[in-house]
Amino acid sequence: MVKSLNIIREEEIGGILIQEYEEFKLESPSFLIVGFPDAGLVGGISLNHLIRELNPKEIAGIDIPRLNPPIAIIRKGEYHPPIRIFKKDNILFLVSEIPIPANTVQPLSYAILEYCMRRRVDYVIGLTGIGSTERLNKEKPDVFIAYEGDQAKRMILINEGKVFDEGMLMGPFAIFLKEAKRFNLQSLIILAESFPDLPDPEAASVAVEYLSKILSIKISIDKLLEEAEYIRLRTKEIMKQTAKVMGQMGRSAEAQPGILYT
Amino acid sequence: MVKSLNIIREEEIGGILIQEYEEFKLESPSFLIVGFPDAGLVGGISLNHLIRELNPKEIAGIDIPRLNPPIAIIRKGEYHPPIRIFKKDNILFLVSEIPIPANTVQPLSYAILEYCMRRRVDYVIGLTGIGSTERLNKEKPDVFIAYEGDQAKRMILINEGKVFDEGMLMGPFAIFLKEAKRFNLQSLIILAESFPDLPDPEAASVAVEYLSKILSIKISIDKLLEEAEYIRLRTKEIMKQTAKVMGQMGRSAEAQPGILYT
Amino acid sequence: MVKSLNIIREEEIGGILIQEYEEFKLESPSFLIVGFPDAGLVGGISLNHLIRELNPKEIAGIDIPRLNPPIAIIRKGEYHPPIRIFKKDNILFLVSEIPIPANTVQPLSYAILEYCMRRRVDYVIGLTGIGSTERLNKEKPDVFIAYEGDQAKRMILINEGKVFDEGMLMGPFAIFLKEAKRFNLQSLIILAESFPDLPDPEAASVAVEYLSKILSIKISIDKLLEEAEYIRLRTKEIMKQTAKVMGQMGRSAEAQPGILYT
Amino acid sequence: MVKSLNIIREEEIGGILIQEYEEFKLESPSFLIVGFPDAGLVGGISLNHLIRELNPKEIAGIDIPRLNPPIAIIRKGEYHPPIRIFKKDNILFLVSEIPIPANTVQPLSYAILEYCMRRRVDYVIGLTGIGSTERLNKEKPDVFIAYEGDQAKRMILINEGKVFDEGMLMGPFAIFLKEAKRFNLQSLIILAESFPDLPDPEAASVAVEYLSKILSIKISIDKLLEEAEYIRLRTKEIMKQTAKVMGQMGRSAEAQPGILYT
Amino acid sequence: MVKSLNIIREEEIGGILIQEYEEFKLESPSFLIVGFPDAGLVGGISLNHLIRELNPKEIAGIDIPRLNPPIAIIRKGEYHPPIRIFKKDNILFLVSEIPIPANTVQPLSYAILEYCMRRRVDYVIGLTGIGSTERLNKEKPDVFIAYEGDQAKRMILINEGKVFDEGMLMGPFAIFLKEAKRFNLQSLIILAESFPDLPDPEAASVAVEYLSKILSIKISIDKLLEEAEYIRLRTKEIMKQTAKVMGQMGRSAEAQPGILYT
Repeated sequence: MVKSLNIIREEEIGGILIQEYEEFKLESPSFLIVGFPDAGLVGGISLNHLIRELNPKEIAGIDIPRLNPPIAIIRKGEYHPPIRIFKKDNILFLVSEIPIPANTVQPLSYAILEYCMRRRVDYVIGLTGIGSTERLNKEKPDVFIAYEGDQAKRMILINEGKVFDEGMLMGPFAIFLKEAKRFNLQSLIILAESFPDLPDPEAASVAVEYLSKILSIKISIDKLLEEAEYIRLRTKEIMKQTAKVMGQMGRSAEAQPGILYT
Repeated sequence: MVKSLNIIREEEIGGILIQEYEEFKLESPSFLIVGFPDAGLVGGISLNHLIRELNPKEIAGIDIPRLNPPIAIIRKGEYHPPIRIFKKDNILFLVSEIPIPANTVQPLSYAILEYCMRRRVDYVIGLTGIGSTERLNKEKPDVFIAYEGDQAKRMILINEGKVFDEGMLMGPFAIFLKEAKRFNLQSLIILAESFPDLPDPEAASVAVEYLSKILSIKISIDKLLEEAEYIRLRTKEIMKQTAKVMGQMGRSAEAQPGILYT
Repeated sequence: MVKSLNIIREEEIGGILIQEYEEFKLESPSFLIVGFPDAGLVGGISLNHLIRELNPKEIAGIDIPRLNPPIAIIRKGEYHPPIRIFKKDNILFLVSEIPIPANTVQPLSYAILEYCMRRRVDYVIGLTGIGSTERLNKEKPDVFIAYEGDQAKRMILINEGKVFDEGMLMGPFAIFLKEAKRFNLQSLIILAESFPDLPDPEAASVAVEYLSKILSIKISIDKLLEEAEYIRLRTKEIMKQTAKVMGQMGRSAEAQPGILYT
Repeated sequence: MVKSLNIIREEEIGGILIQEYEEFKLESPSFLIVGFPDAGLVGGISLNHLIRELNPKEIAGIDIPRLNPPIAIIRKGEYHPPIRIFKKDNILFLVSEIPIPANTVQPLSYAILEYCMRRRVDYVIGLTGIGSTERLNKEKPDVFIAYEGDQAKRMILINEGKVFDEGMLMGPFAIFLKEAKRFNLQSLIILAESFPDLPDPEAASVAVEYLSKILSIKISIDKLLEEAEYIRLRTKEIMKQTAKVMGQMGRSAEAQPGILYT
Repeated sequence: MVKSLNIIREEEIGGILIQEYEEFKLESPSFLIVGFPDAGLVGGISLNHLIRELNPKEIAGIDIPRLNPPIAIIRKGEYHPPIRIFKKDNILFLVSEIPIPANTVQPLSYAILEYCMRRRVDYVIGLTGIGSTERLNKEKPDVFIAYEGDQAKRMILINEGKVFDEGMLMGPFAIFLKEAKRFNLQSLIILAESFPDLPDPEAASVAVEYLSKILSIKISIDKLLEEAEYIRLRTKEIMKQTAKVMGQMGRSAEAQPGILYT
């Protein structure tokens, strides 16, 4: 059993509780890396991979008191809040185990931005997937950047980022971009092309790859690629079985779509 | 990458934020042309076409802070609000990338009218489609006008507009007509007969054509007609395929409707 | 194009706006005849027929500012509110183009009663249908009366009305009966047996017929009977086609119901 | 036509209006017998039977102003509120024509208890059904009692009531039991085993039978038993027809359930 | 008939009423054992078994006044609140007969914790199931512990508890863990692997077994194992019948899944 997390300080921002387990200070330039469960689970997979590889320390958690039903994340028998914050050097990592309920997106997003300002974070960087139907046909998924702020812009130029040309972004990251200036932050959202409905570790790998460039730190993506290979094999197997079953139904699988989609 | 949009001025009207990127003044007679995503996407297609052809300057945006989930429109990597306002000479163009959520129609419509009054707009002109089942059988879709105000009426008489004889209009344009007098505005709504469910650039073309008459400026509609032709061809192709699939089912396509509608 | 309606006076009653287009006075005994879209559309059809036959003048409208989505009725290109009030001699006619949304039934009903009191209406008379499965088998639909008040009662006795023996009445007319006394009004609701789901001009004709007795004015119902005949023929045609299609399915139409209703 | 009901006195209790048509006084021991539309319609059938047999006088009604849509009960052309109160000697009878909407159960139940206290009612007695799958196999449905208060308890002992051993009771009667003491009342709920989905006059008959014991007055249940017999015959007929139709489908009716319930 | 429960004291905590039937005092170390209807009904079955075996005294109840519809639990004809509290020596038992409605989970959980603090409870112990698809293949279901507080931790070490390694816990127990420290309590949640959808007395038996270790009192689980055996036999029987029916459909049961999941 591990040592319990003791809350030494609690801040309430617009109904959201941020609970810190230890004192800490960030040196400039400082970063907050953020991932939520989303399309292809890119945000969740990426953040959990970063935590696995870089082994940052859990230094805070976010409790959403209004959450209904209330949810506890249990690890080694102990309570953890559904959103956890880790720290390594000048980088904070924020990862949510649960999809953010609709009525909490606004207050939570603003609480994170306000907290960044109070803890002197310079860059808030989101990792997420954009579900794409062309994803299946590509050797390697593309990665795009959306940003707000002059330093964020320069950072993309230096690191040869492809900007997200035209599209829509929903959820907390929309607020991170819209309100960056008001909270004196630089915002970057790294969007990796991903399967719309399947977990996509390969999409996470390209997001992490680009992040490592920005942060100028080496992060291995080998485990993500292994997981991607495993999912690819399983998916193929499922497709074969489906085709077989449809064949047994006395019609060829290829003849079905026209009717099924009518 | 383009120059970022800097907000130099922000007005809050009933919970709606109007953010201007530069100082501007309108000369009389001044116009606000408005399009929302609607039946046949006539409003959206028309406004985007006007922006493509006339190349007005993006001078303001409308943020709906209560929007849930929050939405950011990204262009060339940068944040844009979901509703944008452009200006060319004495004409403003307002286009929304998103359908207006039901609980926002009232405050947004009133905010637009109030903003028109503050910026001395004389005419507010909406472009929209009216889904019609007879649309398919017509060479060229019809265009109808609804209006409020004496000068709007004279403008239609001069430009030989066919008035919308009898029907129902829902959404922001209902408020534009109802409240024109209270906000000291002339209102015109240009309604083009359109497909109820398919994007209809040809319907947009007749709406734009009538608008160009009213504004006394030349606007090419060639690109809209090309897009219409492309959609027409694709639709025919889909219909052929459907007929083929239904034939394979062992019943003629013509025999189906009676059963399908039971 | 017709002359626009100019609002010369506006009364706000419990969130409902009543807008008058001209000064008027009613002589005693005065009446308000009311119809909403309802079962068999009896209320709507009846009121529109009365307006067609008696040619009363549009003198006021009712705006429901909270309506969501907002709705504008357009006639000859101009805005009309969804509820209109007409006047001929000592009779007002109130007709709604839209079904009243659930959250508006209470405030609208009370606003109408309050307005009746202020404008010295003596009798408020509702026309409506009661959907009946026996309607199909009858030569001529029956008409029943519900009422409140001594003079209303006498009026029915004189005009040989059949009272509505036992049943339930929902919507504005329930409030018209319940609150008649409080607003110093006589209430009569004329209920015509009607098709539950089809427009039923014949049901409207018997409601109008009884109304003409009460008001002691001659109103032709010829056009309603013509429309009824037209609907009857079209319905028969649809039924024939349905039987034919069901026959083609290899089972007789008569054998189906037992299974369909299981 | 009957004499209208004139409200001579109105009490508003927590948003519920109790309207009395005449002055009355109850002698001790006084009773309020209550029935709502419920499982097997036992409450409604019982109360309507009591009114038919004992011919009490309609002396009050309960109006629920917040009811949406508003509902009027019409009898002989005249308005009646959806809940009516009758009186005979020292007994009040309260019967609702409509199921109580969820958001009204609490305020209505408390208003009834408060009214009982103000009018010096000693016993509030509810009649209701408990839907039971074993109902079909029984010669005569069982009747059970739930109660609150010492005198209620004694009354059951004297009248050899079988107590309701274990179960759940939902709706107004749950509040009648829970709050009896607070309102200085004795509560009895008579629960008759009933069909869950069919009107069950026989279940009503055993409830009424036990009530007549408690009240020590003779009440014939012949008409309820006749109605029960009629329903029994019709149900059998429907079952026969169903079996026949299912037989025509080429499978025996007995083989179906396993599939139907899958 | 049993003696009625008389409320001698009532505490209102955040809209929840805790009603005590007698004076009592708890000696240290004191416990509150809690069970709700949940996955596999482990909480409900366990608590009802504990009450059956240890025969504690009913000393309090919890009323949820806002409950809609209101619910009364009837036992031997008398009203009981839906949540009951029993006492034996230094142990309180809290069992709910009803699933807690979503909008009541928060206030009820906090009211229980507050009540524990006021009545000097040291340990609050929840019993619950975690639905597991592997449950079917196991000889004996596993039991896991989640906890909060140093003494709770020591207690698990002494009693060789397996901690719940990683997972999510929803509902009141999430709050019991999260808020233990704030209310000066030790929290333990005993989670037994259970069928997700079937009542699972065997899962309850392992939860009770571990509880008896913690409390150092002997509790027989024989009756739970008998009930488990009975359910096992009935389930097998249902499965056999299903297979038979599916065989009669002319396809083997094994061939179905592909089609059923289409």
